[in-house]
Amino acid sequence: MSTPVTSRIVGATWFENTLRQYAALSEPGAGVSRLAYTRLERQAHELFAAQLADLGIAAHTDAAGNTIGELPPNTAPRRGAIGTGSHLDSVPHGGAYDGVVGVVGALAVATAATASTRPRRHPWRFVAFAAEEGARFGQACNGSRMVAGLTGEADLHRLRDGTGTTMAAAMSSCGLDPRRVGTARWTPSDWCALVELHVEQGTVLQDRGVPIGVVDTVSGSTRLRVSMTGVASHSGGTPMDGRRDALAAASECVLTCEQLAVEGAETNTRITVGALSVEPGAVTIIPGRVVFTVDVRETDHRRQRAAADAVRRQCRAIARRRGVDVDVEELADTAPVDLSEEVRSVALEAAAALGLAADVIPSGASHDTQQISRLMPAGIVFVPSRGGLSHSPDEFTDAGQIAAGAAVLLETMYRLDSAR
Amino acid sequence: MSTPVTSRIVGATWFENTLRQYAALSEPGAGVSRLAYTRLERQAHELFAAQLADLGIAAHTDAAGNTIGELPPNTAPRRGAIGTGSHLDSVPHGGAYDGVVGVVGALAVATAATASTRPRRHPWRFVAFAAEEGARFGQACNGSRMVAGLTGEADLHRLRDGTGTTMAAAMSSCGLDPRRVGTARWTPSDWCALVELHVEQGTVLQDRGVPIGVVDTVSGSTRLRVSMTGVASHSGGTPMDGRRDALAAASECVLTCEQLAVEGAETNTRITVGALSVEPGAVTIIPGRVVFTVDVRETDHRRQRAAADAVRRQCRAIARRRGVDVDVEELADTAPVDLSEEVRSVALEAAAALGLAADVIPSGASHDTQQISRLMPAGIVFVPSRGGLSHSPDEFTDAGQIAAGAAVLLETMYRLDSAR
Repeated sequence: MSTPVTSRIVGATWFENTLRQYAALSEPGAGVSRLAYTRLERQAHELFAAQLADLGIAAHTDAAGNTIGELPPNTAPRRGAIGTGSHLDSVPHGGAYDGVVGVVGALAVATAATASTRPRRHPWRFVAFAAEEGARFGQACNGSRMVAGLTGEADLHRLRDGTGTTMAAAMSSCGLDPRRVGTARWTPSDWCALVELHVEQGTVLQDRGVPIGVVDTVSGSTRLRVSMTGVASHSGGTPMDGRRDALAAASECVLTCEQLAVEGAETNTRITVGALSVEPGAVTIIPGRVVFTVDVRETDHRRQRAAADAVRRQCRAIARRRGVDVDVEELADTAPVDLSEEVRSVALEAAAALGLAADVIPSGASHDTQQISRLMPAGIVFVPSRGGLSHSPDEFTDAGQIAAGAAVLLETMYRLDSAR
Repeated sequence: MSTPVTSRIVGATWFENTLRQYAALSEPGAGVSRLAYTRLERQAHELFAAQLADLGIAAHTDAAGNTIGELPPNTAPRRGAIGTGSHLDSVPHGGAYDGVVGVVGALAVATAATASTRPRRHPWRFVAFAAEEGARFGQACNGSRMVAGLTGEADLHRLRDGTGTTMAAAMSSCGLDPRRVGTARWTPSDWCALVELHVEQGTVLQDRGVPIGVVDTVSGSTRLRVSMTGVASHSGGTPMDGRRDALAAASECVLTCEQLAVEGAETNTRITVGALSVEPGAVTIIPGRVVFTVDVRETDHRRQRAAADAVRRQCRAIARRRGVDVDVEELADTAPVDLSEEVRSVALEAAAALGLAADVIPSGASHDTQQISRLMPAGIVFVPSRGGLSHSPDEFTDAGQIAAGAAVLLETMYRLDSAR
């Protein structure tokens, strides 16, 4: 039997089985917990490298923890790689699809490409980015920021997780060398384009009954850590008018954040208080200190900054009125990114060629591709998320829908390959 | 040198040194952390027993973990003991005075009584109650409830701390036998009266410049655990109008609790949300589940129940409006208690005899004495709390003020001894 000239993506069952292999690499508890720069994330990267090796594709892991495998051209070579991939870390108790679908999609593309004689003139690169989720260190897209030169060695000592561990220490503890992170940078001339497959993490595709989304703009995200310090005291002894209750102040801030976002809803403003901790945290003690995070998302950077400023201003006003001290720290500020029109057009053509409906939609979530788009034309293909759920154990996308997305990804790569 | 007929309390320096010995028995971190039914609480009880032994007073620890020493009469004996004492456990990151002042006060009384020939016709008992703070298991006054027969063996398997450990398991782990807890019960006819020295944990005495408070009523406390379950999802992907944010719902509940208490401020209603935890608790995830405690305090039980009912009703209404599931569990319900008029009169006379101003005031905090008052006439003597702070590392009462309180305690015991 000869190698086929046409290339076809693997079936839905393969996706189910492969996704299950990655989901098994998790801390105990609901959903998938495979945090950035942990042993489990490294195990997932090792699995990815092994699966590429099974296809005859050698992969290496760079100093940032990204794992990259390259398939050479099978015909008259041209300069610059066509890349695809996503990330393998998760939030605590997240789902089995966010990120992994794009890495498994890359594996499916590699499987189809290695089994086909259809011409590839560019090197194709398959990438698992490290530490995409901001859940652990506050800043998202760490592996892709490092290859784009947006995060450097100094930042690795500044960024800390909830237990005070620096990103540098976390990297060292899983065998990476933070001092060498500069060596992970990509050279734009070495690349041609990159396209990422990802679950939508929203409800647009589901609501419209459209199987494929092609992203035009990725929302920016400003992340704040707000610390409010009042006075811990006895819940029975302390009169209501003598209190400086840090939790009551923080609760007002939570509702104010929600209100600011609802007022800006028609402009895609989304504001979330995701983490909040109370000290000392006992039934008979008025809370003396509360620390919480605020995540401000917008597709327009001016509005994003204005919303983050409003959050800061209102938290300070609430604290002042309640006699509580407040400190607002900016953990990260990522501007919205308009992705490549060229990649978007090619992806839309690819979907049409496969007879799949596709809509152009924005992304509320950040993605590695928004960092990579500073280096080269880059795009994102979405598949639907059931109920829009993500960062949740209930995250789900049907394997048939993932296979359709991977088929669009494969066709997009071939078309980018021949167009450039 | 003969034993003096008059009895005098030890000096302020002795109180400072003795309080420091107990404060050293703490988990690391700010303030004192010596939680109910832990090894550290047991060490404090062992120190108390050793200090009584130094005075020639034998002490034993009962099945509930209370430590009790008895000084026999020094003249024609009468039936029924006169008792004094307080507790040795603390809240997490509490202070060095709450509870300990009353135990150290009992030691000071024992020191004065053993050094004096002033007649004592009743046995005097010195008590360190176990597990008074509700911080760990939700229910307060556990050691005194067990001697009063208000908490029995079955309850020990029902009450759990934040990690799921039952009170029975915690007791077993520090050498107590929960199956024998019934043997700790006190027989009222074996007792005559009990009086407890405690820090006020409020600002009334400080604001009035009065050194001694004598308590008429102890507030009741209804403690609830409210669990709100929404849907965890991605902070960027999920539109504001598609959210079921458990933290936004809980924040509304926190402010509603505060508002209900402020509306009832003229009737001593105090409502506190002291503990609150968020799951999964990450910057990019809409909170899916929040659990918080509510502590409702009142000096009137009807108003206390009405306030707790209002909290329940409003939490349910907020949850319903936001599409969030809610579960409200009652952890404990202790009615307000009017203490003995007789003990109060004797304590006021004792203060007057010592030339110390004393006011009758209510107690917002619960105390072991409110449980003991079901068995016998019982009273509480307060000394001022600087700034009203308690359940805080900043808790402070001047050693001279404590010595004055202990002098009133000693004189009250002698007067109760001769009056009964």
